[in-house]
Amino acid sequence: MVKTEYITPRKCVVFLSDFGLSDGAVSAMHAVADDVNESLRIEDLTHDIPQFNIWEASYRLIQALTYWKQGTCFVCVVDPGVGSDRKSVVALTESGHYIITPDNGTLTHVVQSIGIKEVREISEATNRLKNSQQSYTFHGRDVYAYTAARLASGTISFEQVGPELDKRDVVCLSVQPAQKKDESIIGNIDILDTRYGSLWTNIPKSLLDEEGICYGDSLLVSIANADCIVFQTTLRLCKNFTEAALGKPLLYINSLLNLAVALNQGSFSSHYHIGTGEGWHITVIKSRGEKNAEDI
Amino acid sequence: MVKTEYITPRKCVVFLSDFGLSDGAVSAMHAVADDVNESLRIEDLTHDIPQFNIWEASYRLIQALTYWKQGTCFVCVVDPGVGSDRKSVVALTESGHYIITPDNGTLTHVVQSIGIKEVREISEATNRLKNSQQSYTFHGRDVYAYTAARLASGTISFEQVGPELDKRDVVCLSVQPAQKKDESIIGNIDILDTRYGSLWTNIPKSLLDEEGICYGDSLLVSIANADCIVFQTTLRLCKNFTEAALGKPLLYINSLLNLAVALNQGSFSSHYHIGTGEGWHITVIKSRGEKNAEDI
Amino acid sequence: MVKTEYITPRKCVVFLSDFGLSDGAVSAMHAVADDVNESLRIEDLTHDIPQFNIWEASYRLIQALTYWKQGTCFVCVVDPGVGSDRKSVVALTESGHYIITPDNGTLTHVVQSIGIKEVREISEATNRLKNSQQSYTFHGRDVYAYTAARLASGTISFEQVGPELDKRDVVCLSVQPAQKKDESIIGNIDILDTRYGSLWTNIPKSLLDEEGICYGDSLLVSIANADCIVFQTTLRLCKNFTEAALGKPLLYINSLLNLAVALNQGSFSSHYHIGTGEGWHITVIKSRGEKNAEDI
Repeated sequence: MVKTEYITPRKCVVFLSDFGLSDGAVSAMHAVADDVNESLRIEDLTHDIPQFNIWEASYRLIQALTYWKQGTCFVCVVDPGVGSDRKSVVALTESGHYIITPDNGTLTHVVQSIGIKEVREISEATNRLKNSQQSYTFHGRDVYAYTAARLASGTISFEQVGPELDKRDVVCLSVQPAQKKDESIIGNIDILDTRYGSLWTNIPKSLLDEEGICYGDSLLVSIANADCIVFQTTLRLCKNFTEAALGKPLLYINSLLNLAVALNQGSFSSHYHIGTGEGWHITVIKSRGEKNAEDI
Repeated sequence: MVKTEYITPRKCVVFLSDFGLSDGAVSAMHAVADDVNESLRIEDLTHDIPQFNIWEASYRLIQALTYWKQGTCFVCVVDPGVGSDRKSVVALTESGHYIITPDNGTLTHVVQSIGIKEVREISEATNRLKNSQQSYTFHGRDVYAYTAARLASGTISFEQVGPELDKRDVVCLSVQPAQKKDESIIGNIDILDTRYGSLWTNIPKSLLDEEGICYGDSLLVSIANADCIVFQTTLRLCKNFTEAALGKPLLYINSLLNLAVALNQGSFSSHYHIGTGEGWHITVIKSRGEKNAEDI
Repeated sequence: MVKTEYITPRKCVVFLSDFGLSDGAVSAMHAVADDVNESLRIEDLTHDIPQFNIWEASYRLIQALTYWKQGTCFVCVVDPGVGSDRKSVVALTESGHYIITPDNGTLTHVVQSIGIKEVREISEATNRLKNSQQSYTFHGRDVYAYTAARLASGTISFEQVGPELDKRDVVCLSVQPAQKKDESIIGNIDILDTRYGSLWTNIPKSLLDEEGICYGDSLLVSIANADCIVFQTTLRLCKNFTEAALGKPLLYINSLLNLAVALNQGSFSSHYHIGTGEGWHITVIKSRGEKNAEDI
């Protein structure tokens, strides 16, 4: 069997968790990494993932991952099952990044939109912070930060992480891709752009392109919660927010090149009471002259 | 025409925005900077500017800027007009710092209290992250982080940012400096010391010095909102908070050497319902024996 | 007198404060450190200590400190008495770490659980940021960050910080250690695991070991506020959260190897209205078959 050519891990560890920044937990993880190798770059993606929200961790990971150089090592810990029998793994993505994480669904969006080249289970017998055997509830510090730092600094190779797993067995949350249905495009509202209240859908720009939908076009937008339509109007696909009047709704292509819905300098989510995640769907259809959001 | 002698940019980029830290946006900007040059120091000033609040971004920038070494490059992105025709610029300050920002008012306090030596418009044709042309709503990542990192690392020179603009055309918000009027000093309440609830005015210590006001003096303080006086009493100018009793009000000189109003271990702003920004004014006058805050 | 052999300070400064991250204060401290030496590693432990809460600062410090390499320099600033006559000190811990802090109680847990080898008072005449003499309210920037960076980078030695103090005079908050009483173990609820709502007690695993209490044992747990029992039931000592049903209470050993109380994926503190700090006590006693939390 011919071995995979591995991307060489680089000296950079990026942390993502639901720990928050109010106590010493994140600093303890940084300390473990720095202790392994003083010349590592240590970065945080975010630690504000809502507690136990594996879906959001998976999503935030792909929001930034591909902007980091190949070989960057990510520690992704949202781990309600810490200490139980869920596996601890290191995944090498098709994009050439390493992700150190409990195998509990945090790799969902990576599997779907980037792809995994190889995944290995962390052998805790050899890959665990010294003298941490009595601690069962902080694998982020004792196993993940430690393993990531040792991999990133070349102390261990990817093979030394532990045995290869079948990558088809990586745990994934259920995901429904956006799809065409007659003249409509149907998608999900994946997540909130927390700070601004915009809705980010899973409808890629490429799907709009296929349907011949361009900037400036008006689309009939329907948002449903559990099959009940709670918002319906015609909105224009804008290049930027200022193409809509202040406080008015618009469609735009977000920084991940997916379709999104916003108010210009307002929160669409709060204003129209729209949520995200399971049960929330969006349908868009190229308009033939219905009334515009400007008239709402 | 003799060319300006430019301060050499140093390998340090400091980020300031209203993006918050809850998603992957800031990490994506860091990634772009690290990808340009792995040996850059990457720092955050704050990302908690209230959304779209250009005034506060401008203020927070000068709160830290001059403590950083000359040549440090700042990315300042509070950009409700992202993708519209507002200009993208790099300003070289009289203090020898570079600021990469949309030209929408974020340079207001820099212009007023530090001064700008030269300003250039970013030529996006050459200074844009590769393959980001379809993204119109995240210039922080695609243009500002990228340009800052290339400038900081010496990949491009200040001239290569783009053409020089007339620095008198830099967009500034309206600012009313503190002034003497008869025996009073009149100023604005510029901003809240968010964490502690103290009010920071725009009255510099130097103006108090000119009036012969010293530590220990009692001043008659009037705070008005839209010309209606909402707080008036005599307070002492203290060197530190503990000179007032616990929970009692005092005047002090803040870390930017401006006059400020506080409660000792309490929030002046909450306790007396005092706000900041347009319409909020403060007048101080050297007291001749009126009753003291201790008696309130 | 034989001189102490000092641990050589390393080029790493870790900041802890109650300043928050919403303004420019933390960045100004980082700037001062970077200005002293460009090759320092600059890290944050947390800046979300509740304002003026010296107890929590002291606790968060030991939560991460020992994971950092020997010689790391910590700046710990929760300083309601800034500018008053409280002393400014540098402590060298028995674990080989340096802590730069006002001597106001922030060293409480270090004294108790790690120990101090030597403490010196900062001579502000020589250890103060140049041109900061008019500023009396931001010693974090003007004295502590500056002194820490100079110590960490070898610009000054530990002796050059200032004169040695009697380490028995270090200011400590009152602490009651956990203790055995007949068949019970009595302790305090020291702090909340903020993000998840778990209670962290001061009862060390070693004390449970002495009493022959093992994972899987059921303990009768009583929580009292000012001698009034507000929670009493039998809980099992679990290795991890998933050993309890979703939303059910359990005992576990936390990442500092102390006894803690949690709900599996819920907030024990909110659910049962339990607080922390002075007046909150917990008693555990090995159970002989009382009803289990599963039945609650």
